[in-house]
Amino acid sequence: MSVLDVLLGRPLSSREAEGEHIGPLAGVPVLGLDALSSAAYGPEAALTLLLPLGAMGLPYIGPISALIIAILAIVYVSYRQTIAAYPGGGGSYTVAKENLGPRYGLLAGAALSLDYILNVAVGISAGVGALVSAIPSLLPHTMSLCLLILGLLTLINLRGTRESGLVFMLPTYAFVGTLGTVIVVGLARSIASHGHPVAVTVPPTVPAATQVASIWILVRAFASGCTALTGVEAVSNGVPLFRKPTVPLAQRTLTAIIAILVVLLGGIAYLSYAYHIGATTPGEAGYQSVLSMLVAAVFGRGIFYYFTIGAVVAVLALSANTSFADFPRLCRVLANDRYVPGSFAVRGRRLVFSQGIILLAVLAGVLLVAFGGITDRLIPLFAVGAFLAFTLSQAGMVRHWWRVRGHGWLRSAVVNASGAAATGITLVVVAVSKFTEGAWLTMVVMPLLLLFFLGVNRHYLRVSRQIGTIAPLELPGRHDPIAVVAAGSWSKLTQQALKFALRLTEDVYVVQVRTERDSIEDLADNWDLLIGNPARAAGIAAPKLITLCSDVRLFFKPFVDFVVSLEEAHPDRDVVVVIPDLVMTHWYENILHNNRGAFLRMVLRTRCGARTIVVNTPFHLHD
Amino acid sequence: MSVLDVLLGRPLSSREAEGEHIGPLAGVPVLGLDALSSAAYGPEAALTLLLPLGAMGLPYIGPISALIIAILAIVYVSYRQTIAAYPGGGGSYTVAKENLGPRYGLLAGAALSLDYILNVAVGISAGVGALVSAIPSLLPHTMSLCLLILGLLTLINLRGTRESGLVFMLPTYAFVGTLGTVIVVGLARSIASHGHPVAVTVPPTVPAATQVASIWILVRAFASGCTALTGVEAVSNGVPLFRKPTVPLAQRTLTAIIAILVVLLGGIAYLSYAYHIGATTPGEAGYQSVLSMLVAAVFGRGIFYYFTIGAVVAVLALSANTSFADFPRLCRVLANDRYVPGSFAVRGRRLVFSQGIILLAVLAGVLLVAFGGITDRLIPLFAVGAFLAFTLSQAGMVRHWWRVRGHGWLRSAVVNASGAAATGITLVVVAVSKFTEGAWLTMVVMPLLLLFFLGVNRHYLRVSRQIGTIAPLELPGRHDPIAVVAAGSWSKLTQQALKFALRLTEDVYVVQVRTERDSIEDLADNWDLLIGNPARAAGIAAPKLITLCSDVRLFFKPFVDFVVSLEEAHPDRDVVVVIPDLVMTHWYENILHNNRGAFLRMVLRTRCGARTIVVNTPFHLHD
Repeated sequence: MSVLDVLLGRPLSSREAEGEHIGPLAGVPVLGLDALSSAAYGPEAALTLLLPLGAMGLPYIGPISALIIAILAIVYVSYRQTIAAYPGGGGSYTVAKENLGPRYGLLAGAALSLDYILNVAVGISAGVGALVSAIPSLLPHTMSLCLLILGLLTLINLRGTRESGLVFMLPTYAFVGTLGTVIVVGLARSIASHGHPVAVTVPPTVPAATQVASIWILVRAFASGCTALTGVEAVSNGVPLFRKPTVPLAQRTLTAIIAILVVLLGGIAYLSYAYHIGATTPGEAGYQSVLSMLVAAVFGRGIFYYFTIGAVVAVLALSANTSFADFPRLCRVLANDRYVPGSFAVRGRRLVFSQGIILLAVLAGVLLVAFGGITDRLIPLFAVGAFLAFTLSQAGMVRHWWRVRGHGWLRSAVVNASGAAATGITLVVVAVSKFTEGAWLTMVVMPLLLLFFLGVNRHYLRVSRQIGTIAPLELPGRHDPIAVVAAGSWSKLTQQALKFALRLTEDVYVVQVRTERDSIEDLADNWDLLIGNPARAAGIAAPKLITLCSDVRLFFKPFVDFVVSLEEAHPDRDVVVVIPDLVMTHWYENILHNNRGAFLRMVLRTRCGARTIVVNTPFHLHD
Repeated sequence: MSVLDVLLGRPLSSREAEGEHIGPLAGVPVLGLDALSSAAYGPEAALTLLLPLGAMGLPYIGPISALIIAILAIVYVSYRQTIAAYPGGGGSYTVAKENLGPRYGLLAGAALSLDYILNVAVGISAGVGALVSAIPSLLPHTMSLCLLILGLLTLINLRGTRESGLVFMLPTYAFVGTLGTVIVVGLARSIASHGHPVAVTVPPTVPAATQVASIWILVRAFASGCTALTGVEAVSNGVPLFRKPTVPLAQRTLTAIIAILVVLLGGIAYLSYAYHIGATTPGEAGYQSVLSMLVAAVFGRGIFYYFTIGAVVAVLALSANTSFADFPRLCRVLANDRYVPGSFAVRGRRLVFSQGIILLAVLAGVLLVAFGGITDRLIPLFAVGAFLAFTLSQAGMVRHWWRVRGHGWLRSAVVNASGAAATGITLVVVAVSKFTEGAWLTMVVMPLLLLFFLGVNRHYLRVSRQIGTIAPLELPGRHDPIAVVAAGSWSKLTQQALKFALRLTEDVYVVQVRTERDSIEDLADNWDLLIGNPARAAGIAAPKLITLCSDVRLFFKPFVDFVVSLEEAHPDRDVVVVIPDLVMTHWYENILHNNRGAFLRMVLRTRCGARTIVVNTPFHLHD
């Protein structure tokens, strides 16, 4: 079997497939796409914050990137342990729930949900940002392009077409390969020119400083840059995907992803300093992404440039797809634990969890529209959720080691604790520094989401308490029901309903509701002829005609009152209300008929008790 | 009883009220509002077309107005006869239907419907045009003002608050009184100054000519000005409103309306010539209505000016209300003849025909938005419908006289024939000259509307052929039905459904549909314990358990197939399908539950035959 065959059989969705397993080569694209793609927007986000410092801001990108890489290293060591401890897959929700309790699990679930939704928006808008940098004439269409890609991703995921592994493999390695080449070549030129390389395509001059450097600006730049860390947890979620020996292979994959990410982050930071590349203001004319300027500076705007940017666009757009794989699954886990509606655990017609996909698409679309399709504005919202999930997951791991207390548990606990501390501190930094820029929104939405989860759970518990039983059936003994036929004028519809009632029981009421203005015939006029005489001839009890008078405003009230009184007068019998139902040949014909029957059914359902049963006798029209 | 009391009791809606009748004094506002208000936009529409001729265009307003007044005179004489011939009310739909056949009636109905919708849009936008002429700072809000007035009218009509007659009386007579004063005073000054009166507030200079006069421009100006004739038919529709002697009073009212209209049209035409008042371009800065300039020229912009413009605004906005009174009634007539859905003949909770009102508001709103709230652009659409209805109605009258052939029938027929000819020719002129400006749209919409009417009628005929019967009931003889219970896991819901089935019949199937991935318990596991043993103990036939296996894609298919096979196997018995139904305490809880029950009901309704009856057993949750 060729490598390609192996790859073609390895879509992201194979996380589901039992029996087939992957190694690091496929693991890096499948589980690392989200993490690697963040190299494309993390450094840019930090540089954007440094914009007001002008050229003076560029040197700060070095220390900021170093700090981010240090945190990345801590997180890496911490997640290696999670992989070893949860070979069955240790998502933040699971780890937090099992070790810290369901509430913390739900908090992680809420954080992750937000994270996934924001990841779609950020991934797509960053991809489109890279695209419009390469082809500036597309700039006015930023929003439409974002929604177009979102629509395509949604459609693909709803169709459940298992994307071949190639879709992930090619752009991922193209991304890594081209950016790696840019970094190596750029580094070599920089060394050759003693740190003063000449750009092939000169990047726009960094604008003049409008502010001087302050701790506050640097902290905010760091907080923005931290989005580069998102997606690192994916491998620990996906451990069961790996072939044996599972844990070492998963750890090796994580190592590969982190190593590549470190090279990319460090390289981009150094080169943007060396080539004097600052951010440009997103959403304004002349905007160009940092990566675009960087590639152009090293290689010029040739074929290689467009190939590289193509890979970046593809990887960013596909990184949004990670959410489409993970969000519906998180929803399913939450649905199985009864924290969200059960329908999230129901597979759609194409065997995917359609409801989760649709919800994700709608929410991400709302975000894209609300924020005008500009990544930068979405990033503050993004990081809080991701770091909260990180922190909860690793804090859960500390608790895990404490509970297990196996060989060397203290060392493991210390490693995870330092991971939790690093991400926890980062969380606080991000939350505080980004509070006014939108992080407050995350902090409002997360508790609301938590309340929603708990409310849903309370509802389901109430329902199962009320409907649950293990008692055997009490056999009721047969009783003929009382039948009530809702009649208009004398027609085959009414006849059919009445016939059904008469086959069921001898105790039939035909109820006609009339208004003063009504032009329908009074059934009493021909009652004997149409019903009374045939019944007498057959020697059975004739149905009883009840004529009720109604005003227009509350047409059904007398009818419903009559049914309620029947149900109360006969505590041991069912009341079967028979409503004739005209079934159209074509759906659009329904607008030509009033929906009194459906309305009456609704009123009876809520007003009457458990022994009132509503029946529609279908009369099928033909062409 | 004072005059005011009489008036206060005479809202437009009293067309409905039996027993109370009106004379000419109340008749002019109630039935003449639409006709009189058109004096406010007809001449302006003609002058707008003359704009390219500059000052050279002004003299042409005289002959054009004279021609319009001549047609008005012919139409007047013709409608006087319609009043005499149809004392029960001779709307265009009725007259055309009874004399020319249902298709022509429908054509008139389609024309009238369009006319009413356009009248709302034109009335409101002309009213707002008059308002922004008086208060130019409102100009940017033209659209919002239009929609605001439309919303208010809709609300008032939906609430069914019977507007007191004063609402119509005061503005109508204020309109007639103030404009009459303007015309008389302006005329006097013109005579005193030998045809060269000096304007108190000088109107804007008529812009330089950009074209020379051509027949084509004059024809188009005439066609636009013809909108001044709309609304003349209202009296002939409303004859039954008048007190005895009905016909003479109605004729006198028509005479009064036409006389006032002639004075207004002639006066406005003469004064705009005398004072050199041309139209200004609607929707552009500096726009001012012709009436506004005229009143300001004669009286200056004092209190009288604002009072006059206030009356104009009120009359125009109220003229839209005429459609709100007539359109729903036309819909009701069409619904009673089964050309539109029956719900248009159903009175809403406030005793008005809500559906017609809402439809009218939505369509007029769409028009206002599509045309930017500018009257001028709507006028081409307007006139075609009105003149088609005129022509059909009068042609119908010719046929009427021919059929009746009473004393002097030939004279009457000739009068109506000349009316039909005059309006028919005008119709052709308007249709041709306004074709590219939007009249083509009317000519596309009208046939489509006609096809819709006929399609709806065909549907209802098909239904009544299929359901109609006068045969007495065939008594079926009692048969126990077969019951099929759709079961999930064992719960009080399932129990309740099963109990209902067992009270109904001994022949009960419990059907559980399972998928491979399902986690619900297999009912077979505890069948004997829960159902079998109790049944054996009671000595009755135990329900039969049917377990069906399904894939996810077509979950209900095996179930529905089973029901269909049962129905086919038992041609003499009903199959009652029992689906448990959880009734929530709060409506929003429904989103937490899947709608499989509702979906199954829908599938069964369409797939199964007339003997398969679907039943929901309601289980009411409590808090």
